[in-house]
Amino acid sequence: MGKISLGKYLFERIHQQNVGTIFGVPGDYNLNLLDKVYEVDGLEWRGNCNELNAAYAVDGYSRVKGFGAFVTTFGVGELSAINGTAGSFSEHVASIHVVGIPAVSSQKNHLLLHHTLGNGDFTVFHKMASMVTHKSSVITEGSTAVAEIDLLIREAIIHSKPVYLAYPANLVEYEVDESLLDTPLDLSLPPNNADAEEEVLNGVIDLISKAKKPVILIDSCCARHNCTPEARQLIELTKFGFAVTPMAKGAKDIFEDHEGYAGVYVGDLSYPDVKEYVESADLILSLGAILSDFNTGSFSYSYATKNVVEFHSDYTKIKAARYPEVQMKPTLQKLLASSALKEALTNFTPVPVKRVPLPLETLGPDADLTQQWFWTKLSSFLQEGDVVISETGTSSFGIIQTDFPKDVLGISQVLWGSIGYSVGAAFGAVVAAEEIDPNKRVLLFVGDGSLQLTVQEISAMARNHKNPYLFVLNNDGYTIERLIHGETATYNDIQPWDHQKLLDTFKADNAETLRVSKVKEAADLFKDEKFAKNDKIRLIEVMLGKMDAPVNLVKQAERSANTNAEN
Amino acid sequence: MGKISLGKYLFERIHQQNVGTIFGVPGDYNLNLLDKVYEVDGLEWRGNCNELNAAYAVDGYSRVKGFGAFVTTFGVGELSAINGTAGSFSEHVASIHVVGIPAVSSQKNHLLLHHTLGNGDFTVFHKMASMVTHKSSVITEGSTAVAEIDLLIREAIIHSKPVYLAYPANLVEYEVDESLLDTPLDLSLPPNNADAEEEVLNGVIDLISKAKKPVILIDSCCARHNCTPEARQLIELTKFGFAVTPMAKGAKDIFEDHEGYAGVYVGDLSYPDVKEYVESADLILSLGAILSDFNTGSFSYSYATKNVVEFHSDYTKIKAARYPEVQMKPTLQKLLASSALKEALTNFTPVPVKRVPLPLETLGPDADLTQQWFWTKLSSFLQEGDVVISETGTSSFGIIQTDFPKDVLGISQVLWGSIGYSVGAAFGAVVAAEEIDPNKRVLLFVGDGSLQLTVQEISAMARNHKNPYLFVLNNDGYTIERLIHGETATYNDIQPWDHQKLLDTFKADNAETLRVSKVKEAADLFKDEKFAKNDKIRLIEVMLGKMDAPVNLVKQAERSANTNAEN
Repeated sequence: MGKISLGKYLFERIHQQNVGTIFGVPGDYNLNLLDKVYEVDGLEWRGNCNELNAAYAVDGYSRVKGFGAFVTTFGVGELSAINGTAGSFSEHVASIHVVGIPAVSSQKNHLLLHHTLGNGDFTVFHKMASMVTHKSSVITEGSTAVAEIDLLIREAIIHSKPVYLAYPANLVEYEVDESLLDTPLDLSLPPNNADAEEEVLNGVIDLISKAKKPVILIDSCCARHNCTPEARQLIELTKFGFAVTPMAKGAKDIFEDHEGYAGVYVGDLSYPDVKEYVESADLILSLGAILSDFNTGSFSYSYATKNVVEFHSDYTKIKAARYPEVQMKPTLQKLLASSALKEALTNFTPVPVKRVPLPLETLGPDADLTQQWFWTKLSSFLQEGDVVISETGTSSFGIIQTDFPKDVLGISQVLWGSIGYSVGAAFGAVVAAEEIDPNKRVLLFVGDGSLQLTVQEISAMARNHKNPYLFVLNNDGYTIERLIHGETATYNDIQPWDHQKLLDTFKADNAETLRVSKVKEAADLFKDEKFAKNDKIRLIEVMLGKMDAPVNLVKQAERSANTNAEN
Repeated sequence: MGKISLGKYLFERIHQQNVGTIFGVPGDYNLNLLDKVYEVDGLEWRGNCNELNAAYAVDGYSRVKGFGAFVTTFGVGELSAINGTAGSFSEHVASIHVVGIPAVSSQKNHLLLHHTLGNGDFTVFHKMASMVTHKSSVITEGSTAVAEIDLLIREAIIHSKPVYLAYPANLVEYEVDESLLDTPLDLSLPPNNADAEEEVLNGVIDLISKAKKPVILIDSCCARHNCTPEARQLIELTKFGFAVTPMAKGAKDIFEDHEGYAGVYVGDLSYPDVKEYVESADLILSLGAILSDFNTGSFSYSYATKNVVEFHSDYTKIKAARYPEVQMKPTLQKLLASSALKEALTNFTPVPVKRVPLPLETLGPDADLTQQWFWTKLSSFLQEGDVVISETGTSSFGIIQTDFPKDVLGISQVLWGSIGYSVGAAFGAVVAAEEIDPNKRVLLFVGDGSLQLTVQEISAMARNHKNPYLFVLNNDGYTIERLIHGETATYNDIQPWDHQKLLDTFKADNAETLRVSKVKEAADLFKDEKFAKNDKIRLIEVMLGKMDAPVNLVKQAERSANTNAEN
């Protein structure tokens, strides 16, 4: 029977989950483990500039391809990454963080090794990781490791959450049967309780049969838990109108060119037509809601109806009744297959969506660029299949007013909101996009303030010859913070950088750097066919006013300031 | 009676501890708290480019001035910083991390706010912080906050460890009596148990009275716990020879030009004369030992004697006997004041230290620079009062063979060893140094690989018009890792950067960038009087061979590789 090393087994298993790249940072407790990445056909090692960026990159990669993996070293490396992992946990992104740790014997002897706290306690970092991951394991012997690895990967994927694996340096060469890889991982969800599920289906179908104006509201966990194919089918089958939340804008399978698409619903920060369409519904089918402040216009949902069905990855709620462990995906699949649903829909007449085109601000060609104009006009530049990453702040609010063509994937971190995330995530996304199709474009929108946190990951893009569009919105500091508090306070100022020199400094060898500050310049760029082809790495500095911001951000900022001041 | 806000109280108390700068990153849960920094006379806010760099900066600042403080926001900010705090914990550096958190009412209502894990649990981040800090507190009401703040700062300073304070956004304006500030914090150590202390003193003096060749070995915790004045007096009083460990090289008050200075002791990685002098001792007085792998040549101490006295911050050990809670500083003070010690020394004849000058590699002026030559030659450039920061890797090993003039402060992170640390620490150190004396020079030595993790903090130096010397050792990747494992593996390669453009990219307005690759170029630079004056920010790229490394690092790397492979 053929044998392979446990280290290779780990990476083969990860590779089987549609993963073509391992991210991370080398360190002396993981070096011999990293050798094993190179032994897996079709798997690439792509080093990050630091561990936080690695965690962000894996998050971005996973949002495109469904799962991702990165490797860091013990203590210093894993703690640097933990904020990124917490973000994946908060926002339901599946990934595995593999940490190379000291040999088992060194741990047992409590050796005072570098990268330890100096107190002989090797368990602290694992304890911390366990608080922001769905499941975590520390391998202590070879014989149980295969089962631990398989279980971890399964749990990450079926729960769409990050997991953590501590891998001792001495167990890389431990031999396991190669044939274990022939059995694919079981990634099926546990079945719903049949009785509870039936009750849910009956309840939902009953509500649907009575509804005159139902609305499907698609939120982030629908996308993260891979329920958008079912959501799409539900839309097609029912002809119900639908809206998305900010966190679900650009969700896979949910196309904005669909006749039933009403827009982005953000409570009373929504555009009036969207607000009216959603809030006048007599039935809301909510798919994968995450009702966080920035995702709901500071909790300003205001439906006219109490007929709300919430489908979640791990429970369902019909009006006030909660059905624990009735999971969204199998429930939707049963619903779609139900003849009772088709019957209930027999007499339903779709309520047409009245979509008013997003208003483009009227500005002359020589006018200075504004956020209001920029985000709407950007719609004309986007193409089918693009991946659009928007940083927390003006970008994540601004992108709401951009129309996405079909099959544009949106990535943003509206709940966790760690500034700097988008740059690392863009690296992961551009790697993932190219693995799918080299023509797939990746566009990053990041402010000059946020960029400073994680700028070096542009170097990783250059090193890997990736060709993203890096739109750097230069408004001279932390504009979102200025809107919330401290408009003139120097703590919201930053060192101005010469963004025009960044790609040269990182020695990007096939690069273009541009700057636009006038309406005509941006409009011309968005029409330029050469510019539209992702054949080089591009940095586009977009000059904007210091206090200029999308309208919805201005409103959100007022509310956040009030919440903070509440006693 | 005058009242001040609790927010101002916090920063006034911090300012009283010799702190002139608050570091950190603004975020919407800390903005109104940051306003209070500006209300304290003599206190400056200096924002960092990201939170990990802020934690590193505070660590560097505290190593120069004894205490430091930084502010981040809830969740995202604090987790990004936690690796830096863990480093301060591991290496006994006093600091306070203040985290702006959501209002108490928002927490009580489990609001689904941004920067949360989405599960309504606001306690996770505090739990994580408590694992890598000496003490942590979450303010929940104004009335107890003053006592909590005072206790935290006291504990940080007397135990020389980081502490953590979570500060809710709604309690910034809570009023407290201003007069509370008139009573300085009690920073006295609790007294030693008198009987145990007397037993220790008698034991130590007995050993001293019998010793013919005693050696004082100064280690990191002697410096961190502010015992170097006592160590210095002990050297002067006893005339005993002394050595330092790598972690104590450049400790305050411990001068290498002293006739009793034997050199750096790193077990059998020491220079032969140092090894011989220390290991042939018949009594070792060890002050503040941290016996970690990189600090001891992988645990290769080999004293001829069993007469070892270990003074620690929280216990003393005489041969095999342990005296819990007999603390180093009061014990040394009693020892110095003891007439019995003077008697015991009456007949002592000092054993002269035979210091062989560090050998300078013989290279012609046109020869390529080598690590061996560079680190030794660097001695000629250093000046009294300099602060020297060396990154983990070739720099922290190389600096061991550099002679330090009087009063040079050395900063390195030999135990925790988080790569990238030195750049953030250099920003903190240069701010602290200037607060002491604008002529005080700060020199950073960082490899091109480590620089990539934290490069943006050079921007913070530029923004604050600081003038460090940034020596970037360009050896094309992670050389220390290559020595341990994977010499030709691509995971140890990095994207080459154009370091010559860095200061321009960060718009440093009074800057000089240089490159040296030949012996003559470096030798000329080290003699150049204009270059020697810290009147601008300077980046000096030092070109070195890919596998060139200080001799002691090569040996250490072999040992680390063996430890990792052990079963």
